Amino acid sequence: MSRSHSPVQFVLDEERSGPSSSDTESLLGRAHSPYPPLAHRYPPASAEPPSDDHDPDTAGEKSADHGRGRPRPPSHVAVQIPTREQVLEVQRHPRQRPRYLPQVVAGLLALLAGGWILTYVASLSTRFGGQAPKLQVILMISDGMGPASETMARSYVQYLYSTNSSVSGTSRPLLNETAYADLASGYRGRDNASGLLPLDDILVGTSRTRSSNSLITDSAAGATAFACMLKTYNGGIGITPSRTPCGTILEAAKRQGFSTGIVATSRLTHATPASFYAHVPDRDLESDIARFLVGEARTGLKNLPVDIALGGGACFFRPNGTSSSCRTDDEDLLEAAKGKGVKVLEGMAALRAFREEDAQDAPVLGLFADDHMAYEIDRQVATTLTDEQPSLREMTTQALRYLGERGSRGKGFLLVVEGSRIDMAGHNNDPVAHISDMLAYQQTVAYVKRWVEQQNELGTPTMLVSVSDHETGGLALGRQLGEEYPEYLWYPDVLFQATRSTSYLGELFVSRYPAATREWVVSELFDKGLGIIDPARWEVDEVWTERADAYRANRALADAISRRAQVGWSTAGHSGVDVNLYSFGYNSTGLSGNVDNTDVGLHIAATMGLVPDVVTIELNKGGASWYNATAGHSTSRTSGLSHYQGDF
Amino acid sequence: MSRSHSPVQFVLDEERSGPSSSDTESLLGRAHSPYPPLAHRYPPASAEPPSDDHDPDTAGEKSADHGRGRPRPPSHVAVQIPTREQVLEVQRHPRQRPRYLPQVVAGLLALLAGGWILTYVASLSTRFGGQAPKLQVILMISDGMGPASETMARSYVQYLYSTNSSVSGTSRPLLNETAYADLASGYRGRDNASGLLPLDDILVGTSRTRSSNSLITDSAAGATAFACMLKTYNGGIGITPSRTPCGTILEAAKRQGFSTGIVATSRLTHATPASFYAHVPDRDLESDIARFLVGEARTGLKNLPVDIALGGGACFFRPNGTSSSCRTDDEDLLEAAKGKGVKVLEGMAALRAFREEDAQDAPVLGLFADDHMAYEIDRQVATTLTDEQPSLREMTTQALRYLGERGSRGKGFLLVVEGSRIDMAGHNNDPVAHISDMLAYQQTVAYVKRWVEQQNELGTPTMLVSVSDHETGGLALGRQLGEEYPEYLWYPDVLFQATRSTSYLGELFVSRYPAATREWVVSELFDKGLGIIDPARWEVDEVWTERADAYRANRALADAISRRAQVGWSTAGHSGVDVNLYSFGYNSTGLSGNVDNTDVGLHIAATMGLVPDVVTIELNKGGASWYNATAGHSTSRTSGLSHYQGDF
Repeated sequence: MSRSHSPVQFVLDEERSGPSSSDTESLLGRAHSPYPPLAHRYPPASAEPPSDDHDPDTAGEKSADHGRGRPRPPSHVAVQIPTREQVLEVQRHPRQRPRYLPQVVAGLLALLAGGWILTYVASLSTRFGGQAPKLQVILMISDGMGPASETMARSYVQYLYSTNSSVSGTSRPLLNETAYADLASGYRGRDNASGLLPLDDILVGTSRTRSSNSLITDSAAGATAFACMLKTYNGGIGITPSRTPCGTILEAAKRQGFSTGIVATSRLTHATPASFYAHVPDRDLESDIARFLVGEARTGLKNLPVDIALGGGACFFRPNGTSSSCRTDDEDLLEAAKGKGVKVLEGMAALRAFREEDAQDAPVLGLFADDHMAYEIDRQVATTLTDEQPSLREMTTQALRYLGERGSRGKGFLLVVEGSRIDMAGHNNDPVAHISDMLAYQQTVAYVKRWVEQQNELGTPTMLVSVSDHETGGLALGRQLGEEYPEYLWYPDVLFQATRSTSYLGELFVSRYPAATREWVVSELFDKGLGIIDPARWEVDEVWTERADAYRANRALADAISRRAQVGWSTAGHSGVDVNLYSFGYNSTGLSGNVDNTDVGLHIAATMGLVPDVVTIELNKGGASWYNATAGHSTSRTSGLSHYQGDF
Repeated sequence: MSRSHSPVQFVLDEERSGPSSSDTESLLGRAHSPYPPLAHRYPPASAEPPSDDHDPDTAGEKSADHGRGRPRPPSHVAVQIPTREQVLEVQRHPRQRPRYLPQVVAGLLALLAGGWILTYVASLSTRFGGQAPKLQVILMISDGMGPASETMARSYVQYLYSTNSSVSGTSRPLLNETAYADLASGYRGRDNASGLLPLDDILVGTSRTRSSNSLITDSAAGATAFACMLKTYNGGIGITPSRTPCGTILEAAKRQGFSTGIVATSRLTHATPASFYAHVPDRDLESDIARFLVGEARTGLKNLPVDIALGGGACFFRPNGTSSSCRTDDEDLLEAAKGKGVKVLEGMAALRAFREEDAQDAPVLGLFADDHMAYEIDRQVATTLTDEQPSLREMTTQALRYLGERGSRGKGFLLVVEGSRIDMAGHNNDPVAHISDMLAYQQTVAYVKRWVEQQNELGTPTMLVSVSDHETGGLALGRQLGEEYPEYLWYPDVLFQATRSTSYLGELFVSRYPAATREWVVSELFDKGLGIIDPARWEVDEVWTERADAYRANRALADAISRRAQVGWSTAGHSGVDVNLYSFGYNSTGLSGNVDNTDVGLHIAATMGLVPDVVTIELNKGGASWYNATAGHSTSRTSGLSHYQGDF
C-alpha cells in the first residue's frame, strides 16, 4: 500500500556534493506535501573508500573504481519514479559508483522514490488528525516449529494433564508438570479433544517459506523475508539476492520514531535476530553482525537499531583474547556500547534489578549467556543456569515493560521475540528439548496475548503476529519401527520422564569420559537423563561408541527416545513444509490464509506505516562503503535451485 | 445450536405398541409447535429378534433377552429432556431391550429429545418465510493429504511450469505437463513464490484429527467425525465409541429433503465414503457396508441414503461366486438396487451417456472399477483404463449436474467428494502417485470453485469445504541421505520423469516374472516407469529380491525415487499432524482457525439446519435389531491410548 507502481514525472534542477543523511531527513519534515520538493539529490560524490576488504582477489577489482571522476548530472532531467523492482535493480551493483548519466539518474531515482513513498506514508498519519498513530506490534518467531511440532506439543500437554494419565502414580518427579501448569487450563480429560495451547485459538493461516535459491530456507533467508519483505538466498542477513543491504522493518520503525526491541534465546548475533538489524552476505560473520547491534558498523544510520536487546551470545561482544570471547578481532563491543550510553545488563540479577527509569531512555543490551541460552528443559533443572538465565517469558516481560514505557512517550514500538532453540532441538531430532522450548514459547505467547488484550482495552492499538521461519527436522507424529505394518499411534508419555536435552547429555558424556563407564551411560544418560529404563545393548553401544563426539552421542540418544515415542525425523536440517501463522489483537484479521513469508513483513509495515525502502536508500548511500559484499562464504546450506545431479 | 443443554420438563400420558417409524415422521409435521406433543412413544414391544448374528459366542447371550415381557410404563411420568451426552449414553446397550422402567423411560427420552430438537430445527426454517432455505453444500475430502503434501504439490507445479525449468530440453514426454496445464495459471517464474494451487487461496485454518482411542486416526474414525460430528474409535464406521449407530449429516440431509451424493476414487464401500451412509463396527465389513448403499441393511430408514454415488468397488455388489466378486455372501446387490428403481451405471460410457432426465429422480449408482479406481498417473497413460474410468473431476461434474438439477426442484443438496487414493499413495510412500492424485483433486477443486461461484452469483447459497481426514506417510520435504549435514533442498524435477505409480510397477513386475529379468527391471521399472536412469546395483537387487511380493517391490521402487527427490517418509501408516482446512463460497468464513474434525460436520449441519440426532434415534429404534455390534474385529489399527509398553 505504500508503494508507487505508476510512474510519476519530476524535474531535477540541481545537484550537490558531500556526504549527508539530510536527504531523507528533510523529507521527513515535509510530511504534509503530497509530493517531495523538486530539489533532490543524488548520492555524494566523495564517499569513503571501502574499509575492510578481507578478500584480496576481489579487493583489487573494486579499488579500480576508486578515484574516478563522476560527471555532474544535467539539470532539469525529466525522470520517472521507479517501482520497487526498479529500485532493487538499481541496488544490484553497490560497488559501481555512478560514473555516467544512467547511474546518476538511478541514484536520483532511488532518492525520489524514497521521498515519494515517505511522503505518502506521512500523509497517512495525517488521517489521524495530523498526529502519528501510536501503535505497538510484537512479532514472535518460533524458529523451526512446523505444523507437526504444534500438534506434538498440544498432545504432550493434553496427556500430561489427563486425569487418568498413564503417568499418574509414577514416582519420578514430573518436572514439566509444575513448570507448565499454566498451560493445562482448559484441558478437560484424556478422551476429549480439548486442551488447546495458547497459539491454537489464534491460528489465522499458514506461511510459505522457500527462499530465493532453494525450496528449503535457512533462518537467515527466512528472517530476512520478514525483515526486508523480500526473498533472499540462504545465508543472507538483511540483504537482497544481489547482495546489497536492504532496510528492515525494525530499522524503519526506529527511524520513524518507534521504539524497537529484540528478544532471543540464541546468540543475539544468530541468523534470525541478526536479520532485523544487520546486513552481511553470510550468517557466519557474527563478529561483524555484533558491530551492527552496538552501532559500530558505520552504516550511516543515525540511531542504534535496537532500544532493548535481550538474549545470549556475549562472546561476540568481548575482544578476542579475553576469556569466552569468540570474536575474530580485538574490538571490545561492550565497552563501545557503554561509550554510546548503552545500559549493559550482564546476568539475570542485573535484568531483575533493572528499572526503566534507570536507563533514562538509553538503549539496553542484556546478555545472559556466552553462547546460546540453555534449552528450557536444561534451564529448569540446572540451579546455576536458572540463576543466570531468564526464561523467554521473563525477557519478554521486561522488554514489554521497557518498551511500553518508552512507547508511551512516543509512537509505540516494534518488538521481535524469537523462541530460537525450538529449531536447534529439531536439528538434534530431540523431541524433549523441542517440546520444552515450544512450551516456553507458548507460555510467552499466553503472557503476550494477555498484555495485548489489556493494551487494546486501554485504547492503544497492539498487534501480535506469531509465525515460524521454517520447519526443522522433518518431524512426523508416527513412525514405523520395523517391516510390520504400524499401529496408528505415538506415545507422548515416553517424553515425560526425560529431564535433560540430548544435547546436554552428549556434552556431559564427552566431558566425563574416561571416568564415565558403560554403566554410567546406562544410569546417567538413559535412565536419569531420558527416563529410558530398558535400553538395548546395541543402543548403549551406539552411544558408547561416540564417547569422543558429543554431537553424535546426542543424536544416538535422541534417536533412542524418538523411537520409543514413535516420532519420526527425516533430517538434521530443515524441511520445506508451510508453517503456521497466528495473529491476535489489533488488525489480526489483516493477514490470513496461505501467505508468503514476505507478506508477514509487508503486513507489519503496512499496519505501522513503515517504509524500509528509505532505510535501504540510506544504507546504500555512497556505494555502501561500510559493506563488503564478498565477505564470508559464497553459498550457505544449499547448492541452489539446480536440479537433481545424480546423488541419492 | 440444535442441542438442548438445559433439561425441560414433560409429562407422558400414554404408551403404545407395535413397530412404527411414524414417531419422528409425525414430529416433522408439527413444525410450528415449540415443543413436541405430550403423547409419546417408547420403542416397540414386539420388535423382530436379531436376524444375522454371525458370532455364536454372543448370539446366545443376546437371545436370552428375547421373549421377556416388558412392563408397561406408568402414566404421567415427569421426565427431563436429556442432553446429547445422555442420549448417547442411552444408546450404549442397543441389544438390551427395555425390560424395566428405566429402559422404557430412556426410550421415551430419546424420542422426546429428537422431537424437541426437530421442532427447533423446523422452527428455524420458518425464519425463511416458512419455506425451507435452498442450499448446496460440497464437502471435499483429500484423504491422507497433510500440510507437506500441499507444499509438495505446489512446488511440483511451480517447477513444472517454470520457464527456465531444469527439465526443459529433455526429450522425455512430460506427461503431466499437459494433463495439469490448467493448474499452471498464475505461475510467474521459477524465482517467484507465486504459482499457487486452487486450494491455496481458500485456506481458512487447520483441523485436529485424533480419534477417540488414538492420537492417530484412521479413515473410518476420521470420516465418522465429519459425518456423525463425534469422535469414535479407529475402524468404526458411522458408530459411536460405544458401538451404537449414529446418524450422519448425509442421512439427515436426505431425511430433511435435500438430495445427496457421494463421489470417491476408492471402492464406494471403503472407510471414508462408507462412514456417511453405513453403520458397522469394523471398516473391513465391506460386504455389509454395500448393503447400506442399496437400502438392503434394513435400518428402518425410509430412503436410500444416497441419490447419486459414483466411484469404484463394483466387486462388493456382485454375488459371491460370480467373476470379480469380493462379497462374503451370494447377494446380488446390483439386482437388488435395480429392483428399487436405482439407475445403475457400469463403466464410463454409461456415465457419459447418462442424462439427469433419464433417471427421473431415481437414485444413481455408478461403478467404474471392480476394486479402487486407478491412480491418476496410471489412469492417464493406460488407454483401456482411461476409457473405462472417469477422472475425479468428471465424476464430480456429473454429480453436480445431477444434484443441481434435482436440487433445483427441492431444498438443495449435500455432496461428499473424496480424493481417496492420495492416501493410498502415501501408504506406499510413492511421491509421484501422491502428487498426481493431489493434482487431480486440485483440478476438481478448481472446477467446484467455479461452479460454487456461479451458483452463488445466481442466488443459490452454495458452500465448499475441503479438508483432509489425516496425514499419511509422515511426509517431509527434506531428507538427509547420509551422515553428512544435509543441503537445504529437495528435487521436484526427479518426479517429472515418472510415468507410473510404484504400486502399478510392483504388480507389473510380479505378473511378468519369471519372464522379467534383471535387465527388464532396470529398463521397464526404473527407467521407463520412474525415469531413473542411474539405479545402483543394490537398488536393483532390492527390487529383484521382491519378485514374489508386489507390495514390497513397490516399496523398494518408491524409496528409490523418494531418495532422489530427497523427500522423507516415516511410516507406511498415518501420522498425527493437524491437516489443512479450506472453504469457499457461502458461509465460508463460518469455520476458521484451528478446529476439531468434528467441527467440520457441526459446521455443515448448522449451515444446512441438519439434525443427525433424529436419524440416530431412528437407527436405534427397536434396539437396532438390524445391527450387530460385535461383528468384525474388536480393534483396528491401534492398540488404543495405552501408554508405551516397551516396544521401540
